[in-house]
Amino acid sequence: MKIAVAGLGNLGKAVLREIGEEKEFELVGVFSRRKHENGGIYNAPVYPFEIIKEFKGKIDVVLNCMGSASDLPRTTPYIASLFNVVDSFDTHALIPEHRERVDKAAKTAERTAIISVGWDPGLFSLARLYMGAVMPRGKTFTFWGQGVSQGHSEALRSLDGVLAARQYTVPVPSALERAKSGELCETDTAKMHRRVCYIVAEPEADKEKLKSEIKSMPGYFKGYKTEVNFISFDEFLREHNSMAHAGHVIGCRKTEEGVDTLEFSLSAASNPRLTASVLLAFSKACFKMQQRGEYGCKTVFDVKAADLLNTKDSEKLL
Amino acid sequence: MKIAVAGLGNLGKAVLREIGEEKEFELVGVFSRRKHENGGIYNAPVYPFEIIKEFKGKIDVVLNCMGSASDLPRTTPYIASLFNVVDSFDTHALIPEHRERVDKAAKTAERTAIISVGWDPGLFSLARLYMGAVMPRGKTFTFWGQGVSQGHSEALRSLDGVLAARQYTVPVPSALERAKSGELCETDTAKMHRRVCYIVAEPEADKEKLKSEIKSMPGYFKGYKTEVNFISFDEFLREHNSMAHAGHVIGCRKTEEGVDTLEFSLSAASNPRLTASVLLAFSKACFKMQQRGEYGCKTVFDVKAADLLNTKDSEKLL
Repeated sequence: MKIAVAGLGNLGKAVLREIGEEKEFELVGVFSRRKHENGGIYNAPVYPFEIIKEFKGKIDVVLNCMGSASDLPRTTPYIASLFNVVDSFDTHALIPEHRERVDKAAKTAERTAIISVGWDPGLFSLARLYMGAVMPRGKTFTFWGQGVSQGHSEALRSLDGVLAARQYTVPVPSALERAKSGELCETDTAKMHRRVCYIVAEPEADKEKLKSEIKSMPGYFKGYKTEVNFISFDEFLREHNSMAHAGHVIGCRKTEEGVDTLEFSLSAASNPRLTASVLLAFSKACFKMQQRGEYGCKTVFDVKAADLLNTKDSEKLL
Repeated sequence: MKIAVAGLGNLGKAVLREIGEEKEFELVGVFSRRKHENGGIYNAPVYPFEIIKEFKGKIDVVLNCMGSASDLPRTTPYIASLFNVVDSFDTHALIPEHRERVDKAAKTAERTAIISVGWDPGLFSLARLYMGAVMPRGKTFTFWGQGVSQGHSEALRSLDGVLAARQYTVPVPSALERAKSGELCETDTAKMHRRVCYIVAEPEADKEKLKSEIKSMPGYFKGYKTEVNFISFDEFLREHNSMAHAGHVIGCRKTEEGVDTLEFSLSAASNPRLTASVLLAFSKACFKMQQRGEYGCKTVFDVKAADLLNTKDSEKLL
């Protein structure tokens, strides 16, 4: 299968590392809007994104690894007008809108796109759906962490007096336990998670003021149990460079017979690397679906598990 | 959706209890080969299995809940020649053969069958497949229990001197931990599980002899760490009537970045009740697939998640 990567951020690089080990994929090239030395990245040829259209007919699937919020809404529909494409669009509320635009482009071009692929949205969405389908009168809870939230880290960096910042989302252990035991009936994310911030402040910054500013930020920290730690830049660089992430989807229900619990948990040494693996797996399905004439924009819900593996390999797994 | 249940063992009864809470299903009737008082079971009309063919055109999906090893290989192909059908055939090694026979019958009749639906095979198969697809150079381990193994309990009962018996399969905690940490590289089921037996022996039975007979039974207990407990019939009835079961599918891999772990766990208060819920969920997909002309025999791998729920409900879960 001939694939290409669009975008060379953390995710794009992780895809290249992951492809390195996969014999099934032939990497046609990397398409980036920034300047990169040709061949400098894992021996992959790097081209300007603008010339991707010249590769029409030469790529089976493009993995669009550009920035989710800003780039994917524009570039995935464009790529879908030329190639099969998989992306990791993760702004949950805007998925229907993104889907519609990609669907139009893909259908016109008789191509297949799978959007919002990764672990959440992605594997976690599948876990929520299977659990909800099997236990229609149950409850499903999603816990994120421990891991860095890019959005919350950016929110911290936007404050005056902050030089560098990282925010870890941490599930509250008692909430996790309550969810597993079928007792947690509220789905209030703020009661299920703590937010732990590590901040390098400017020397003259008023730390107490910053702390209360952070704790009252609406939409980010207000309502959450938030811990703010001020650290040195040295400690920041030394201790806070992990890409690790984790999470749990817990479904439970009560019947006359007792409590049933289903749980899907993830612990990733590298968040982008695991997302890259999921993208690669679904790129195989994307190509198969397009070959069968199933054009348009799909999500992980529209992909049958069998399309992720060869028939021979999957039969043993039943 | 008009459904019918074939077979009135533990699973058939669990389906009836589960349907009781589901507004989406209209129960046409129960078809059993044993005599049951009409209306005696959850107000459902009970008919002899032999007359099920008279209901042709009046049932959307039949849930075949007969005994897996002995009945399903004969009855699922027969039902598939008349109706859409879902079963829980669970003899892993014989699935391809069963599939072929059901496929032939279903295709001829332009019906859709989904076989081997439940939690293993079923949800656990899906977990193994998604994990294998996402981490192609990783390892996937399946742990069963703590819960009763019907096959092993029957093996115990087949021995001279045994009046009643139950066998619990119990995961070895250290093996579970090693699997999660990416360290377990062997997939030897015997090293991953203990077998705990509770036996009511005939008064005159030689317990020491029985014990060593059990521990050396090939294919069942030989090679396993097996614990044999002799108990009274009173204790047996009082302490060993739980239908609870549990299990874990653990996938892990090592990359340059560290260890990634995915885990799907299940804890069911009632094994048949959870299996019933999975059957009902897939019966919806079965009907949709047949309506779209996707005839023949399918497994959970051939069903896209979206078909388990209404589109409106599933979009929120992304």
